[in-house]
Amino acid sequence: MVVVGAGFGGLFATKTLRRAPASVTLINGTTYHLFEPLLYQVATGILSEGEVALPIREIFRGHDNLDIKLGWVTDVDVAEKAVLVSAPDGRERRVPYDSLIVAAGASNSYFGNDGFAEHAPSLKNIDDALELRSRIFHAFEMAELEEDPAARQRWLTFILIGAGPTGVEMAGQIAELAHRALKGQYRHADLAKTRIILVDAADRVLPAFDPPMSRDALRQLSTMGVDVRLNTRVVDVDAEGVKMETADGTERVEGYTKIWAAGVAAPALGQRLAAATGAETDRASRIRVNPDLTIPGHPEIFVVGDMAASNLPGVAQVAMQGGRYAARVIKGRLAGRPLTKPFRYFDKGNMATISRFSAVANVGRLHFRGVLGWLMWLAVHLFYLIGFKNKVTTLMHWVVSFLGRGRPQRVATTQQINARNALTRPTPP
Amino acid sequence: MVVVGAGFGGLFATKTLRRAPASVTLINGTTYHLFEPLLYQVATGILSEGEVALPIREIFRGHDNLDIKLGWVTDVDVAEKAVLVSAPDGRERRVPYDSLIVAAGASNSYFGNDGFAEHAPSLKNIDDALELRSRIFHAFEMAELEEDPAARQRWLTFILIGAGPTGVEMAGQIAELAHRALKGQYRHADLAKTRIILVDAADRVLPAFDPPMSRDALRQLSTMGVDVRLNTRVVDVDAEGVKMETADGTERVEGYTKIWAAGVAAPALGQRLAAATGAETDRASRIRVNPDLTIPGHPEIFVVGDMAASNLPGVAQVAMQGGRYAARVIKGRLAGRPLTKPFRYFDKGNMATISRFSAVANVGRLHFRGVLGWLMWLAVHLFYLIGFKNKVTTLMHWVVSFLGRGRPQRVATTQQINARNALTRPTPP
Repeated sequence: MVVVGAGFGGLFATKTLRRAPASVTLINGTTYHLFEPLLYQVATGILSEGEVALPIREIFRGHDNLDIKLGWVTDVDVAEKAVLVSAPDGRERRVPYDSLIVAAGASNSYFGNDGFAEHAPSLKNIDDALELRSRIFHAFEMAELEEDPAARQRWLTFILIGAGPTGVEMAGQIAELAHRALKGQYRHADLAKTRIILVDAADRVLPAFDPPMSRDALRQLSTMGVDVRLNTRVVDVDAEGVKMETADGTERVEGYTKIWAAGVAAPALGQRLAAATGAETDRASRIRVNPDLTIPGHPEIFVVGDMAASNLPGVAQVAMQGGRYAARVIKGRLAGRPLTKPFRYFDKGNMATISRFSAVANVGRLHFRGVLGWLMWLAVHLFYLIGFKNKVTTLMHWVVSFLGRGRPQRVATTQQINARNALTRPTPP
Repeated sequence: MVVVGAGFGGLFATKTLRRAPASVTLINGTTYHLFEPLLYQVATGILSEGEVALPIREIFRGHDNLDIKLGWVTDVDVAEKAVLVSAPDGRERRVPYDSLIVAAGASNSYFGNDGFAEHAPSLKNIDDALELRSRIFHAFEMAELEEDPAARQRWLTFILIGAGPTGVEMAGQIAELAHRALKGQYRHADLAKTRIILVDAADRVLPAFDPPMSRDALRQLSTMGVDVRLNTRVVDVDAEGVKMETADGTERVEGYTKIWAAGVAAPALGQRLAAATGAETDRASRIRVNPDLTIPGHPEIFVVGDMAASNLPGVAQVAMQGGRYAARVIKGRLAGRPLTKPFRYFDKGNMATISRFSAVANVGRLHFRGVLGWLMWLAVHLFYLIGFKNKVTTLMHWVVSFLGRGRPQRVATTQQINARNALTRPTPP
């Protein structure tokens, strides 16, 4: 059988299939599993990319029934039961399947304004995180270099579009950078003048969370100096700033660094799969599946995680539980004991960090905030991080960053700077 | 006064000038000090780039007389006493000086064959290390994907040109990757077939070290399966392999991954400075300086480290001691007590790791090898790493990599893969 994607859904499906009496092929476009919930810490210099990108081959060392193939699945031949894989060697390969678990995740949607992407990168993969890291630290350096006060203020202005967990966590971290971690390191730029603007069309931050958590998060963000603009839509993004629209009219805010944390869409593969199977999709092109996560009329194809249309939030837990469920259905069929229970999501809660020592979390009907929420956040993320070594080194970096004020990971590569600025680096030494 | 470069020379000069009764400007092309002796560990997945790239502003936090400027120094106006700085904002700035310490390091030389660079990157900066990391781990993945046995063998062949410390350390680490760290992680590629070829025109490895150390290193490399070719010159490098020349004739070796670890040249700034001051240079365009490290006729300009012509090896210690010496001369002049002693290098010894638990080292006339050499290597590198936090996290990663077999840092970015292969990533999810 074939598993597409090594995100949380594909990872847990593959783990569950370990002792299945069948050979499993896991296909992923990169060599690593990405621990997306901590990607914002890569973008803000706390963790290195290696700490959130675990080599798949290391995770599954010793899984004898598993073949890991590097490549992007571009299409599914439903009639012939094979997926088409485009590998980094430029070749297309066909991989046959009897059962198929598709867990290719979601990508960011710019709601049809794909031109925004260049000016406001999103935060979905390692490239994004390293690009944002490079832009954020570069912005402070440029503010230091710049002599013109207006241009300097544009370098010290950060605009975050979307107040879900990513937008909130990035806003909190940039505030920590400006007001704590980088404090006292610049002579010409006054980092106290840093403006962090968090915009959302909804009427509260963290709109997918319970309202009391939104209130707590908003209060905490305001304390940190984040300028939260609710009921506000971003209608244009260019190199120099953002145009926003409220019920009262439009406003332009100037700022060089923009981050897109709004909108989710299924990847192109979702649309291909829907077309091939005749499955229905929702507005975000996610596939409507049966209660057992299979595509109607295709009991051999499962869709789990962010690619499936549902009322469930786009969080790791949903994908993990979906991947595990689909693998169990397949194992049940192989054993001649079909599983008849539909997929049921067990909600373990939601959480988002606002700053060090402060987070909001809910577990069932319980709400936590401040230090208690933050300790829960810490414990949960350490628990779910893959691999003992990773838990240890990540904890180390958290100690360094949260107790001290260092941001150990700040490197911008020349490749990034050149690609961005189209500058020629003058005769490097 | 102005210090050019935040390598070992510039760093120690700036540190020494901390309490000088004058304002100091440190100019560097990147925001970080690069701990070059451990760059090969970034290229082979042991350390993250943040661990060898220490933010300069963090190192010098609290140095009140210091202004740090980001930019590449492209020229020196000797008559007007000003350096020209090209900053990443695309502007040129003039920074005046009364005293000038130039410590812009060295770059790799392809001996006039600059076309080799594309196929055989060198290892002088973070971009190089990340590019090599991406190529090395990618090669194993490509060997796994490739069905043709000859092409697979080309992916499993690594050719290192130059058997100085970088070539030797890289060869040892790639051998560890193939035979230990990545062992058992691939189904189709047989990593036991990995070929590692280390080529040098000299008659021994580590030619700058004492001959007994070269013999020990050679023996250890051979034990690890590294194919060492001495008295062998590389005359051509292309995408598919390398042409080598010995006294017996020429041979072509096929291999996709080549690493250039030979040849050092002064940066372009060295030639500009020599032209501006009329200073003599050696064959590698390094500037001939007075015994007090000043340029003849220009007692206000010091050249330290790899940019200065001398019989001293191009190691960190020479640059550190030179930077400290130049700063002391300047401080002496400011205090009205000119230093009259010429610069004297105190040789603390040389060392190179061959593999985990094995290194060669000499301290004075004492030679160490094997575990003892390796423990010395460990202690010395930890001692010289800047910053307590860095020492701790680096030690952690060493424990993980040397006792376990993990290589935590393996990420290749899509930007790198696309730039290299000019491939379009097919519809990423």
